[in-house]
Amino acid sequence: MTNRVLLAHGSGGALSHELIRDLFLRYFDNPQLRAMADAAILDDLPPGRLALTTDSYVVQPLFFPGGDIGELAICGTVNDLAVMGARPCYLTAGFILEEGLELKTLERIVASMADTARAAGVQIVTGDTKVVDRGSADGVFINTAGVGVIPLGIDLGPHRLQPDDAILVNGSLGDHGMAVMMQREGMAFSSNLQSDTAPLNGLIDELLTTLHTQVHWMRDATRGGLATVLNEWAQTAGMGIEVFEERMPVGEEVRAACEFLGLDPLYAANEGKVVVAVAQEAAEHALATLRQHPLGKNAALLGRVTTSHAGYVTLETLYGARRILQMLTGAQLPRIC
Amino acid sequence: MTNRVLLAHGSGGALSHELIRDLFLRYFDNPQLRAMADAAILDDLPPGRLALTTDSYVVQPLFFPGGDIGELAICGTVNDLAVMGARPCYLTAGFILEEGLELKTLERIVASMADTARAAGVQIVTGDTKVVDRGSADGVFINTAGVGVIPLGIDLGPHRLQPDDAILVNGSLGDHGMAVMMQREGMAFSSNLQSDTAPLNGLIDELLTTLHTQVHWMRDATRGGLATVLNEWAQTAGMGIEVFEERMPVGEEVRAACEFLGLDPLYAANEGKVVVAVAQEAAEHALATLRQHPLGKNAALLGRVTTSHAGYVTLETLYGARRILQMLTGAQLPRIC
Repeated sequence: MTNRVLLAHGSGGALSHELIRDLFLRYFDNPQLRAMADAAILDDLPPGRLALTTDSYVVQPLFFPGGDIGELAICGTVNDLAVMGARPCYLTAGFILEEGLELKTLERIVASMADTARAAGVQIVTGDTKVVDRGSADGVFINTAGVGVIPLGIDLGPHRLQPDDAILVNGSLGDHGMAVMMQREGMAFSSNLQSDTAPLNGLIDELLTTLHTQVHWMRDATRGGLATVLNEWAQTAGMGIEVFEERMPVGEEVRAACEFLGLDPLYAANEGKVVVAVAQEAAEHALATLRQHPLGKNAALLGRVTTSHAGYVTLETLYGARRILQMLTGAQLPRIC
Repeated sequence: MTNRVLLAHGSGGALSHELIRDLFLRYFDNPQLRAMADAAILDDLPPGRLALTTDSYVVQPLFFPGGDIGELAICGTVNDLAVMGARPCYLTAGFILEEGLELKTLERIVASMADTARAAGVQIVTGDTKVVDRGSADGVFINTAGVGVIPLGIDLGPHRLQPDDAILVNGSLGDHGMAVMMQREGMAFSSNLQSDTAPLNGLIDELLTTLHTQVHWMRDATRGGLATVLNEWAQTAGMGIEVFEERMPVGEEVRAACEFLGLDPLYAANEGKVVVAVAQEAAEHALATLRQHPLGKNAALLGRVTTSHAGYVTLETLYGARRILQMLTGAQLPRIC
C-alpha cells in the first residue's frame, strides 16, 4: 500500500475504488454515497425553494491556525446557502490532487471535512477525484457544491433593502485573512491569531426564526472582506451605505498584523462572518439575538442604509472625517480560501 | 485591460466582478446567474426525484480533436445525470485558473461551455473563480456540479439487473482517450481521430421513453473505459457479465493508435458512450432505438448478464478463447478528462 497519491488514484480503476472505499466512504459514509452511482438521489428534501451554490478552495497553506482547507470547503458552501436563507442539506466534493501528496495529509483534510459536515448538519453525497502530475497543481484543491432549501416565506435580497435598514455583522473582522497571512509569512508563532472559519447556518437559523421578515438581506464577507460586500450591496440596490469606523469589531492582533503588513482589516477575508441588513426598528433585537449565539458574541451594529450617496459606501473615520470606502481593486491576499 | 489572467481576477474585488460581467455573464446569461447571489434559486424544477452529481476536469491539452475542456465539463456532468435517468436542468461552474493564462483561451473555453449547455438544454446558474499563482496549476481546471430530476416511475440501478439482461453500447469505443493521447504525443496530424465528447441526455431520453422499465441500468463509460463499467456492474450486482470481442465497436484509427501505443480500447476513455442493460426480450428494440439516434448509429449488442462467474466479466476473444476482463489496475491515461 502506497503512502502517497499516485496518478492511478485518479484513473477510475482499482486504486480509485480503493481510495473511495478506504478513505472517502470511511469518513463521509451515508446511503447515497455508498451507492457509488453517477449521481446521488436526494429523496428527503424539506418543502421550500431549492438553492444551489459552488466554490473551489485553493487556500495556501492547507493547514492554518483555526482551520484547514477541508473545514473551509464545507463552511464556505454551507454559508453561501445559509445567507440566502436556505437550510443546507447536501454537498458534493470534488478533489484535484497533486501526484505525490501524502495520503495522511489527505486523510487529515477528509477527516476535518467529515467533522465540519457533521457540525453543520450536512451530508456529502457524491464526489469525484482527479490526480494531476507533480507540479501541475499545489497539493490539494477542493470544490464543493451545495443544495439547500429555502423555507416558504423567506425572501432575502437586494429588492428587500430599505432606507434606514440597520447593517450588522456577527463579530470581529479579518481573522481568517490575517491568520492565513501570518502563517504564510512564517509569523504564526508570534501571534494567537486564529481563523474564524465556522458554519453559520445555526446562527442564521436563529436570526431568521426570531426576526422573520425583518431580516432583509445577508451575505458572508469572504474574499474582499466587509468593504466588498457593502459595495456590492450599495451598487446592486442603488442605495448608499454609511458605516462608522469606531464600531468595527477588529481584534487587537488583527489590527497589529494589518499594520505590520500594510493591510486594511475591512478588506481582509472572513470565513465565519455574515453581514446582515435588518429593518431599522429591529436593529437592537437583531444585535441581541446575534450576541446570544456563540458565533455572535462580538456582533456589532455598523451603520445604516441611506438614500444619499446612492451606489457608494461611506465610512466615518475615528477622527470624524468621512470617506468613500472603495471596492477592493487589487489582489490583497491571493489564495486566501 | 489586461489580456492575461491576474491574481486579482480571483480576489473577489473589482477585477473579479469585471470577469464575471464581461465573460461569464456574457456567455452563460440567465436570470439566476445575473442575480449574482451567493446561491442560485431553482424555482421551476419539474416533478420527480432530485439527482445531484459533480466532476472536475483537468484534461491536458485543453483543446483536442473533437472537443475541449469546456465541452467536456458540460457533457460529463450532463451524462452523469442522464445515466441515472435524470433530466439534467442546472449546472454550477467552478474555475481554477493559473495566473498568466490568456484571457482569450479562457473565452474560447467559456464559449464552448455555453454552446454545449445550450445543445444539452441546461443552464449554468452559479459559479466561482479562483486564481492560483503561476506554476501552482496547469492552465485551467473546471468543476461542474449538476442538478437533474428523475421523472416518477424511472428506477435504474444494480437492484434492477437480471440474469440474461442484454448489454449494449451506443457506439465505438476509445475515441476520446485515443484522440487526446494522439494529440498529447504530437501525432494528431497523422490521424483523423476525434473525441466522441457529446451530451447523451437526448439519446437516453429517447431510450427511456421507448423502453420504459425495460431499461435496467445505465452508466457512461468514461475513465477506465467499458471494461471498468462492466466490472463495477458485475461486482455491485453480484452477477457475471459475458461479452464478445467481435461485437466491440472499435474504429480502425482507434485500433491502430492503441496498437501503436500499446493500449487496449476496452480501457480507453469515452465521453459520449453509455453502457445500457435492458431486459433480454427488449434487446433488439433497444438496439434499433439507439441506432436511430445520431449518437447511436454504431450501437452494438455486446453480451449479457449471467448467473455464472458472479462478480466477474468474461470476454470471448476473436479466437474463441474466454478470458477474464479485469478492472483497470494502473493509470492507463492520466488527465484524460
